[in-house]
Amino acid sequence: MDILFLGTSAGVPTRKRNVSAIAVTESQGRNWFLVDCGEGTQQQLLRTNLSLNNLQAILITHIHGDHCYGLAGLLASAGMSGRKTPLTIIAPKGIREWVEATQQHTQLYIPYELHFTDVETLTSVNSGLFEIHATALSHRVPSYAYRFTEKMTKTTLDTDKLKSLGISAGPVWGKLKQGQDVDYEGQKLLSCDFVQEHIQQTKAVVCGDNEQPQLLSQFCRDCDVLVHEATYTQDIAAKAGDVGHSYAGLVAEFAASIHLPNLILTHFSPRYQSDPQAPCSIEHIRQEASAIYSGRLYLADDFDRYQLIKDGELRKADV
Amino acid sequence: MDILFLGTSAGVPTRKRNVSAIAVTESQGRNWFLVDCGEGTQQQLLRTNLSLNNLQAILITHIHGDHCYGLAGLLASAGMSGRKTPLTIIAPKGIREWVEATQQHTQLYIPYELHFTDVETLTSVNSGLFEIHATALSHRVPSYAYRFTEKMTKTTLDTDKLKSLGISAGPVWGKLKQGQDVDYEGQKLLSCDFVQEHIQQTKAVVCGDNEQPQLLSQFCRDCDVLVHEATYTQDIAAKAGDVGHSYAGLVAEFAASIHLPNLILTHFSPRYQSDPQAPCSIEHIRQEASAIYSGRLYLADDFDRYQLIKDGELRKADV
Repeated sequence: MDILFLGTSAGVPTRKRNVSAIAVTESQGRNWFLVDCGEGTQQQLLRTNLSLNNLQAILITHIHGDHCYGLAGLLASAGMSGRKTPLTIIAPKGIREWVEATQQHTQLYIPYELHFTDVETLTSVNSGLFEIHATALSHRVPSYAYRFTEKMTKTTLDTDKLKSLGISAGPVWGKLKQGQDVDYEGQKLLSCDFVQEHIQQTKAVVCGDNEQPQLLSQFCRDCDVLVHEATYTQDIAAKAGDVGHSYAGLVAEFAASIHLPNLILTHFSPRYQSDPQAPCSIEHIRQEASAIYSGRLYLADDFDRYQLIKDGELRKADV
Repeated sequence: MDILFLGTSAGVPTRKRNVSAIAVTESQGRNWFLVDCGEGTQQQLLRTNLSLNNLQAILITHIHGDHCYGLAGLLASAGMSGRKTPLTIIAPKGIREWVEATQQHTQLYIPYELHFTDVETLTSVNSGLFEIHATALSHRVPSYAYRFTEKMTKTTLDTDKLKSLGISAGPVWGKLKQGQDVDYEGQKLLSCDFVQEHIQQTKAVVCGDNEQPQLLSQFCRDCDVLVHEATYTQDIAAKAGDVGHSYAGLVAEFAASIHLPNLILTHFSPRYQSDPQAPCSIEHIRQEASAIYSGRLYLADDFDRYQLIKDGELRKADV
């Protein structure tokens, strides 16, 4: 699957970072899912190749404005750009009430069905290649994490067996691997005799605001990548006295404790500047986390795209 | 006064044009007013030198989302950036209801007072240098135009009289013009004997969506500049069968009929491209209007800034 960051700032947008939104796209095809939809998400999407017509569902982590105020405009624009297929919204109940109030007070006409699922009652949902689960976090308002599990079939050709029969690499191998039976020198070669299928799955957990990463211990089991907020460094978190958010070290400790292979931090307080020499730099968040966590650590910027490939390897890709 | 365009696209944003918002700033000082607040207005403001702390009032023309969906995020960000002073919102009643519903459903905390005025009942309001009036337009929902009248004192020094007394140009002239009395070669020169004050006023009308420009005949009397939507050219308007909007020629005819000196068109359908050679180009809107209207015609782009100076001259300025 692909994870594309559309906004990585906490609370308010900056010139370099918009407020929260993350697009998760299936490995095959064009189906994608949007986790959170801060104001300006539809504008950010104009700079990607994602189409609102291929959007399968919107998942909102919590009701705070920097995670949902782009929803009304995005729903309106999807309608104006011709969307007719129903759209699923998985979100806290307050979001459904807010969208309904917005439809009423601003005469918002949506020319396709909205299917709301209250996350409070969600067990799991299957959509396309994904199985999606949710779990509760700890924040000033109810906040949730979403887990995307993508199951894919991996096909292996028994090349040793083919070689032992004197069939060397070439078009026959390709046809057999693609599931075709082949007539070979008067012999019928059945694909199923040479091909093995393995089900592989990749798992990504994408979180809303959360002050207790350890709540995710079970939910992140066997997970390939965790996307978690790191609003502050520890010193600034203590000074800010902010309740409900995590600092880099806290998330890093949790990631280390569960031997997580890939950690992507996001949702940075606007006080952290990109200049490494700044008195309050995003590099301080990186340093605090990397001193504790020795897996692969990434700090997301807007429009960063990460590909989670079959063997669970995460790599940064071009947009 | 200054008129700064923060969004010039109709309905949906494009990569070059955001949805509607216009900042109107007093000639002196930093006080400014926001007419409409489409989604992403706060992000556009980050690219200007306008501060949310100096925002005096927000005026919404009508309840459609492309004119108001940025309101909740902007109010939230003003609070997070430390605003404490009350903020006036002049808008159709539905906007007040929507903001209240948003506060409720998304736990939006605003740490300063909001003073709502329903535009339906507005006669006039004075704020800083401006006197503001509203009038009803014709659209699919109730829509309004706002008129900003700025009164300024212009001071003229009677230089002929000074010269006739043998007082030539120099520091004495400057002091007298600034209202200071001056001891000059044993004589007391009183500022009031050499200075005349004239009250000058400039008027700008900024409109919401409107299919009947002629409704503005009285309201635009003696007005220096009209900012009006021109969503379409006439041919496309006829094809689109859209109700509630104006095409360029219609606005141009009205502007010509009232001998308006300056007309700024905005709110262009996203189908109009900036390339003059495109099959559907913004230049077609310009051509249609300029064939009818011979005053000074401008087509607004995002971040265009227009200065209306004392003698009613409008000039395009740097942002």
